Amino acid sequence: MAQNLIFTNDVEVTIRHLVANGGYQRVVWIADVNTASLITPAPQYIITIPDGDDSKTLETVAHVWNGMEKMGATRQSLVINLGGGMVTDLGGFAAATFKRGVRFINVPTTLLGAVDAAVGGKTGFNYRGLKNEIGAFAPASDVIISTRYFDTLPVQEMKSGFAEVVKHAMLNDRDEFLHLLQHDFTVPIDHDDLLERLRKSVQVKVDIVARDPNEQGERQALNLGHTVGHAFESLALRRGQPIPHGYAVAWGLVTEAVLSHLILKFPSEDVHRLGSFVRENYRDFPFTCDDYDELIELMSHDKKSRNGEISCTLLNTIGHYSIGHTVTPDDMTAALDILRDLLGI
Amino acid sequence: MAQNLIFTNDVEVTIRHLVANGGYQRVVWIADVNTASLITPAPQYIITIPDGDDSKTLETVAHVWNGMEKMGATRQSLVINLGGGMVTDLGGFAAATFKRGVRFINVPTTLLGAVDAAVGGKTGFNYRGLKNEIGAFAPASDVIISTRYFDTLPVQEMKSGFAEVVKHAMLNDRDEFLHLLQHDFTVPIDHDDLLERLRKSVQVKVDIVARDPNEQGERQALNLGHTVGHAFESLALRRGQPIPHGYAVAWGLVTEAVLSHLILKFPSEDVHRLGSFVRENYRDFPFTCDDYDELIELMSHDKKSRNGEISCTLLNTIGHYSIGHTVTPDDMTAALDILRDLLGI
Repeated sequence: MAQNLIFTNDVEVTIRHLVANGGYQRVVWIADVNTASLITPAPQYIITIPDGDDSKTLETVAHVWNGMEKMGATRQSLVINLGGGMVTDLGGFAAATFKRGVRFINVPTTLLGAVDAAVGGKTGFNYRGLKNEIGAFAPASDVIISTRYFDTLPVQEMKSGFAEVVKHAMLNDRDEFLHLLQHDFTVPIDHDDLLERLRKSVQVKVDIVARDPNEQGERQALNLGHTVGHAFESLALRRGQPIPHGYAVAWGLVTEAVLSHLILKFPSEDVHRLGSFVRENYRDFPFTCDDYDELIELMSHDKKSRNGEISCTLLNTIGHYSIGHTVTPDDMTAALDILRDLLGI
Repeated sequence: MAQNLIFTNDVEVTIRHLVANGGYQRVVWIADVNTASLITPAPQYIITIPDGDDSKTLETVAHVWNGMEKMGATRQSLVINLGGGMVTDLGGFAAATFKRGVRFINVPTTLLGAVDAAVGGKTGFNYRGLKNEIGAFAPASDVIISTRYFDTLPVQEMKSGFAEVVKHAMLNDRDEFLHLLQHDFTVPIDHDDLLERLRKSVQVKVDIVARDPNEQGERQALNLGHTVGHAFESLALRRGQPIPHGYAVAWGLVTEAVLSHLILKFPSEDVHRLGSFVRENYRDFPFTCDDYDELIELMSHDKKSRNGEISCTLLNTIGHYSIGHTVTPDDMTAALDILRDLLGI
């Protein structure tokens, strides 16, 4: 899966260069109602879609296909997806299936998009209430990763993406992990430093994906924090109090670090460091031991579970992961107890 | 693109073997209203779709996705597509996009499906009146090629598929080409001989696709006969007298053989041999010089044309092709004149 990653804050220049050298018959932009205005000058061909996960539907995909057809897009065209993960996931799927595949570039505008959704070739949309139920593995030809759209992101959005940055460091590099835990969300963004963090973080994902593009094995490492995180996310949704993906991942990372300690003797000092960072920066989500059964049931129905067993990626130490661990409900219960302790809830 | 081809008339045994060795969590069959009854014993999980190209729609794809979900299909499941090109194209697309990709096997039940649609990884459906407008390159893990469903095929269906068999021989092997032109559609099928013809024919496609899975270049060789053939097919459709795909291809092959003679000195004796075979076996389609403008306009809007120019694969000799030839309207007019002569229309 050849995917060219470009880390730059000169986004316009980079796009002009890619377009000029591509010899494309037509260039079609896909953006949502918020990100459409980020493009200057306004492009000749742009398809605007509604924002938000609720709009990540087959109807929106069809809207994009129809727009591409009306604009005369062909296999020799280029699609540029400008937006968060919803735009790059859905726009990528629409491009990858139009006439069996039009080349596309991703320009993520959120931290979560830059560090996760836009890279690695997963595209898709929600279907019948299931997240990313329909999709394809189809890499963007280029991903332009910048921090230039982040100044106006709500801090909650920044924190949500940062959880995935922490996850990547946990899979790879303790120095980076410790460095990240010093991050202060209350000061203005240091663009040069953050772009460097992104470069390191994205490389972790890219290296793993390169070894397992279609998620047959090792790519499950990237699921760290997500078996538990998805359960929190779904629980919050069921209660009508949805939480940002990265917040759920942050709690998932702490829980799975605790499990790693219980099962693989992952060092407790790193569990505590992570726990403090999450306690300080990620809004608490009130849950009690009464919720354990529901959470455990959600975990055992995760897309990646087999035979109804809970499967987690665990860590021996920071940088040394071990995929496909079956976790018993008893161990999970113990870990959730410790999580509540660590987060003070 | 790893795609395992199995040539056998022991279809049930082969499928049982593939299923037994795959460790699949669930096996879901996709068939159309005609082919569903070919499976014995009736499978536990089967999704039946309407037949015919008119049903090759997004609605039918959604029907398959919904069925897969209701039947509890997961990424560890297997889909078996049993039918003609419509079933393998559409079922392949549905499987390739469900949860970002479920493994699938194709079991073509028509000659055209066996020699063309089921092999090579093209999947998709018609959209807004455009054939295969939405789709993906997604290979079946296994394709079981047999002649056992052909005894009950209408002779018109056999002839339609046979045109693609002739096309493959024209790209590869003059002895096989001459052998095929002896074929007599009025006698019962010799299954052993036909399976051997299929083996040779499919291998031609497989070798070309292996060198260019995503149709960036050489795969255009397989388009031999199709630039002109598609125009005949569309013209017939516009007139409300649709013709089988392979009939249009047969006339396209003759026309493009004539062009090959005019432009590349392709031997006239082979043009005449092919012309006689097509004249004898493929129903004539009344068209006159009054239709040339419309045909030429259709050719210049073919999915594979660039900049409105007519592009054809031509032959130096049988077995030596040359892709991406721009053909002028004058040359095309001359070739259509000669085609009418050769076919006696």
